[in-house]
Amino acid sequence: MVPVKSMRRKLVMVTNDDGILSHGLRDLATSITKYADVVIVAPDSPQSASALSLTLHKPLRVEKFGTGKIESYAVSGTPGDCVVVGIKKVLGRKPDLVASGINLGDNDSLQDILGSGTVAAALKASLMDVPAIAFSMEVRGDLVFGIGGEQPDFRKAAVVAGELVREVLETGLPRGVNILNVNFPGDLRVDTGIELTRVAPRKYVEKALTRKDPRGKSYYWIFSKRLSRFPEGSDTKTVVVDRKISITPITLRMTKDDLSDLSPLIRNVKKSVGRAFRPS
Amino acid sequence: MVPVKSMRRKLVMVTNDDGILSHGLRDLATSITKYADVVIVAPDSPQSASALSLTLHKPLRVEKFGTGKIESYAVSGTPGDCVVVGIKKVLGRKPDLVASGINLGDNDSLQDILGSGTVAAALKASLMDVPAIAFSMEVRGDLVFGIGGEQPDFRKAAVVAGELVREVLETGLPRGVNILNVNFPGDLRVDTGIELTRVAPRKYVEKALTRKDPRGKSYYWIFSKRLSRFPEGSDTKTVVVDRKISITPITLRMTKDDLSDLSPLIRNVKKSVGRAFRPS
Repeated sequence: MVPVKSMRRKLVMVTNDDGILSHGLRDLATSITKYADVVIVAPDSPQSASALSLTLHKPLRVEKFGTGKIESYAVSGTPGDCVVVGIKKVLGRKPDLVASGINLGDNDSLQDILGSGTVAAALKASLMDVPAIAFSMEVRGDLVFGIGGEQPDFRKAAVVAGELVREVLETGLPRGVNILNVNFPGDLRVDTGIELTRVAPRKYVEKALTRKDPRGKSYYWIFSKRLSRFPEGSDTKTVVVDRKISITPITLRMTKDDLSDLSPLIRNVKKSVGRAFRPS
Repeated sequence: MVPVKSMRRKLVMVTNDDGILSHGLRDLATSITKYADVVIVAPDSPQSASALSLTLHKPLRVEKFGTGKIESYAVSGTPGDCVVVGIKKVLGRKPDLVASGINLGDNDSLQDILGSGTVAAALKASLMDVPAIAFSMEVRGDLVFGIGGEQPDFRKAAVVAGELVREVLETGLPRGVNILNVNFPGDLRVDTGIELTRVAPRKYVEKALTRKDPRGKSYYWIFSKRLSRFPEGSDTKTVVVDRKISITPITLRMTKDDLSDLSPLIRNVKKSVGRAFRPS
């Protein structure tokens, strides 16, 4: 007889920022069903570059979605909303892991990590004490894939993601690691290497275009232009230049370690605040 | 005759997430005019909890706003959008500093820092190599202030903010500090202390309410419930419990320092990926 303990399957919540129609989400969830029970709680529409924004000023809707094998829910909000409402209302408990992705486009460098909704969902899970992994896949060249139309083949990436999820379900994340941020090159093959990497400080420069509307009034598009050189061992270099899978352990220790450099600044501010408030 | 060098006033861009009508924004900008030229580039509507989200899928509008003494522009986007379009299109150059706030409500702890639009604007400036400071003020008790109606008195906080901006314009931020995150207690007095602090890992627990609409369908509100105990020396403890001004040096070094803990994980994943891709 099989002992009861080994029969208990772990529970993984899968989300993303491209929305519930993304193939990357479906392929990731399907791959994980091999090792755990899976519930999808994902945005009902694309939420790219949503970062860790939350919907506080209006209510959220949650709709049961589709009739596929995997229980799925669409949420009228951001990836961060999906994590909160998924844990508190859909599952009613913390899952053993949150897997976010597979995102349409790589999310490496500080710039991507602070702006991406896919990474933000993993960060929000971590802030709720749930281990989490974010998965993203580079889209090569100038191809732009739409959620309703053609999409890249995420299946190989999903196999690797499934194995990583299995491993983290078994052993947990190392102490001091909030999330793993995983990026796949767009030309992933079965023999593509896997590297441990560090976050690149910068991946692109910010740009803005000016256009005129039919009434002659200006409007602006912000965009970014990717740089061509990145630090050795960084997430961006590994994926974009070296064409390998990048696994980055993200830590949210955001305070400068040594505060003593700041003592002169604080001392001077105290003095000048004293002067500013002194009755003249 | 005054030497030319000392005549050149520095340029500070002021933004926020509560929108261009916030008194906190006006009071901060006014206070800084004592020491520098100031241009306001702020969202045209409240953008609380927007985090570092960016508007990539639609254009932005920028409107000259008001007839006050301070040149002001309202942007149809997020705080992050304001920083990008402000630098690239409104100013056409990098300012010497970006000051964000003063936010209606304190932004301390990892949870606030990753979710706040006010802090995000400062982080975006830092990612664009501009020194930045985020300012937020606690709103005491259960008071809720609307942007159109009653607002707390930000003027004392703005005086302190102005002195800190002056100091950072003069000396710069210490090496390794991306931004300063400053929080004022709601009962700020002229003799309130100023402390250097570290980011608290957690300030609240996430919650979600279920309600029924007139058709009997459920909807959900996410919210948070503040904890009562926070680590000694943390930003949240300093502001909320000790009633002092908190200045936190934020660093964006987000990779775990020692990667060696992760070697077993990567080794195992490589093995299992090898097995998964092996033709059977």
